[in-house]
Amino acid sequence: MENLRTAQPRVHCIANYVTANDCANLLLACGASPIMADDPQEAAQITSACAGLTVSLGTPSARRLEGMRAAVRHAGELGIPAVLDPVGVGASSLRMEAAQRMLDESRFAAIRGNGAELAALSERALNGAGIDDAAQGADGLETALQLARCTGAVVILTGKRDIVTDGRTAYRVSNGHEMMRLVTGAGCMLTALVGAYLAANPDRPLEAALAAVCAMGICGERAHAHLACGEGNASYRNHLIDAVYTLVPQDLEREARYAVYG
Amino acid sequence: MENLRTAQPRVHCIANYVTANDCANLLLACGASPIMADDPQEAAQITSACAGLTVSLGTPSARRLEGMRAAVRHAGELGIPAVLDPVGVGASSLRMEAAQRMLDESRFAAIRGNGAELAALSERALNGAGIDDAAQGADGLETALQLARCTGAVVILTGKRDIVTDGRTAYRVSNGHEMMRLVTGAGCMLTALVGAYLAANPDRPLEAALAAVCAMGICGERAHAHLACGEGNASYRNHLIDAVYTLVPQDLEREARYAVYG
Amino acid sequence: MENLRTAQPRVHCIANYVTANDCANLLLACGASPIMADDPQEAAQITSACAGLTVSLGTPSARRLEGMRAAVRHAGELGIPAVLDPVGVGASSLRMEAAQRMLDESRFAAIRGNGAELAALSERALNGAGIDDAAQGADGLETALQLARCTGAVVILTGKRDIVTDGRTAYRVSNGHEMMRLVTGAGCMLTALVGAYLAANPDRPLEAALAAVCAMGICGERAHAHLACGEGNASYRNHLIDAVYTLVPQDLEREARYAVYG
Repeated sequence: MENLRTAQPRVHCIANYVTANDCANLLLACGASPIMADDPQEAAQITSACAGLTVSLGTPSARRLEGMRAAVRHAGELGIPAVLDPVGVGASSLRMEAAQRMLDESRFAAIRGNGAELAALSERALNGAGIDDAAQGADGLETALQLARCTGAVVILTGKRDIVTDGRTAYRVSNGHEMMRLVTGAGCMLTALVGAYLAANPDRPLEAALAAVCAMGICGERAHAHLACGEGNASYRNHLIDAVYTLVPQDLEREARYAVYG
Repeated sequence: MENLRTAQPRVHCIANYVTANDCANLLLACGASPIMADDPQEAAQITSACAGLTVSLGTPSARRLEGMRAAVRHAGELGIPAVLDPVGVGASSLRMEAAQRMLDESRFAAIRGNGAELAALSERALNGAGIDDAAQGADGLETALQLARCTGAVVILTGKRDIVTDGRTAYRVSNGHEMMRLVTGAGCMLTALVGAYLAANPDRPLEAALAAVCAMGICGERAHAHLACGEGNASYRNHLIDAVYTLVPQDLEREARYAVYG
Repeated sequence: MENLRTAQPRVHCIANYVTANDCANLLLACGASPIMADDPQEAAQITSACAGLTVSLGTPSARRLEGMRAAVRHAGELGIPAVLDPVGVGASSLRMEAAQRMLDESRFAAIRGNGAELAALSERALNGAGIDDAAQGADGLETALQLARCTGAVVILTGKRDIVTDGRTAYRVSNGHEMMRLVTGAGCMLTALVGAYLAANPDRPLEAALAAVCAMGICGERAHAHLACGEGNASYRNHLIDAVYTLVPQDLEREARYAVYG
């Protein structure tokens, strides 16, 4: 986290149009500098000027998916850590095929999704389940471990409890607040934060991802503590980004709650 | 409204990119679960996993319009209620032709627009008027009744006062606050809310639409009551979504102000 | 500014999808009426119903760029003032070529960018520098003057201090707050505000642009003054738009801080 504030890395963020604004403000809040660009005609060029890349499968089109693919390939060539957010991958063949193709072609530094998304990705088959379902618990851990081993990526499975694993070590993170589920793009914002932490710490992807997940969870708790009477999920969204803005490394050390599985 | 909180229906929302984030947070606020997807390659597949569909003509492209059309057709086949928001339909032949084609091919459960948009849709001709103009009053009622009879949809005409009609019964709703006009996407958010209420109550479209219009109007009043000194339309937007989040069925019963026309 | 509140001009805003919502709310906050539309099949038609046009090179695609080009050409034919925001033009050949083509074909009333963007545009060559870099100081002034003379546009260079020039007279504006850098789209919002001021005062582009830059800077200061303990850049964004909403002409007269260069 200190590296992030010092390095202020530029992060190429191919976010879906629903949550792009929140992801950009979150990247600014954590000390990174966002660039959004999704067209195949410029995606790789933009990536090459950045220290990190995140791609989201939300609101896809053939053009955007082609842009992502070019950016991810180029990131691989340049050794820039790339993060995949397989939004709704289980609900759409278009998204699943795009995810498979990128996973076949390139290695991601990290993959962040909920239980249903990561289970679908593991099975590489349509499961009909949607974006918000979470197949947590013991199965969630197996899914995450298997996907990490199979892809070489650090896998982050978010749900009631979050799992972070590189296929060997697995952490369970208990920070967070259930109200995060009621903010669109809370998952996308975590993906962006993971991208920023990885960009600042490319050689320690597991630790960077774990720190990002703890940080976001702590911010979710703090956002809830700031919620005044009569406030709802719109205010919560603002408090969440504000909490990322005000978080300092000591907070992260003091408030992170995680444990190694097993 | 109780059905909505219980069923937590998944709503496929093809929103324009200006207001997609607000629509998603509003759907979460009211208890629904949003999925955004606009590409023809996945739109119908996404719809089939949902209980409701809303489509907005804002920021159109040929691709998005094709995606909407596929989703609306598929919703018709599956009996899923679809809501049309003809944003700016009077100002653009592209939007008008897309609206006409969808109305010819499919039956919408509801149509939500301002006076100028619904008048343009009724006349099926370009009228040069813009997005925010409202041709209210007696003419507004005639327009709404005629459009409802002609399309088979429940028509919601929003303006100084709102009209909700299925072509036989017409309600005048006097909830709401003029500051809603100064929030981009207030209309889109109402459309999303109507989509959620219809998804939870597909067999009573008139009552569901009326409840959604009253609920949004009440939230507009409450958002204004929460406005602190120095706050403007950005804070009002947050208060509006927060108000949807905190609204309970008893509030709706107690504060709804509507009457049957005639 | 009084003209703006009186005329309530319709502004066609081709914003990128990251900041479109903020730009629309900002236009509503200042008294204008936004229409967003980027498709070549409707862009020119939409422009013809408006009093002003703004185009942003952020998140480009071939389709969007074609839409912008058609809108800008049509604005030129009709004498509608158009504002260019060359977001990230130095980081992408796609954006640079689009900017060059529009500058060759049409005359913009104003161009708004940071130092790196305007330097890149002046050199009409890729410089590899990114979106947030600012080449301020003496060079910034030279860049702005040269670009204004070469394009016939009022040039607004934003950074630590802002420069507004028509190539003859140059103003230095010292309103503003450094926290504006940490809100995505603060530049885009200023571009939208310039578009609204020009739409209301098409015959005095230099004065209108100067007033818009001062107004936005004052709002940036006021937004910071409203920042409560624990608030960050998400709240700051809301305060910024709220400040535009509550600003009155007397505030602008009293708090504007600018001087003629030289």
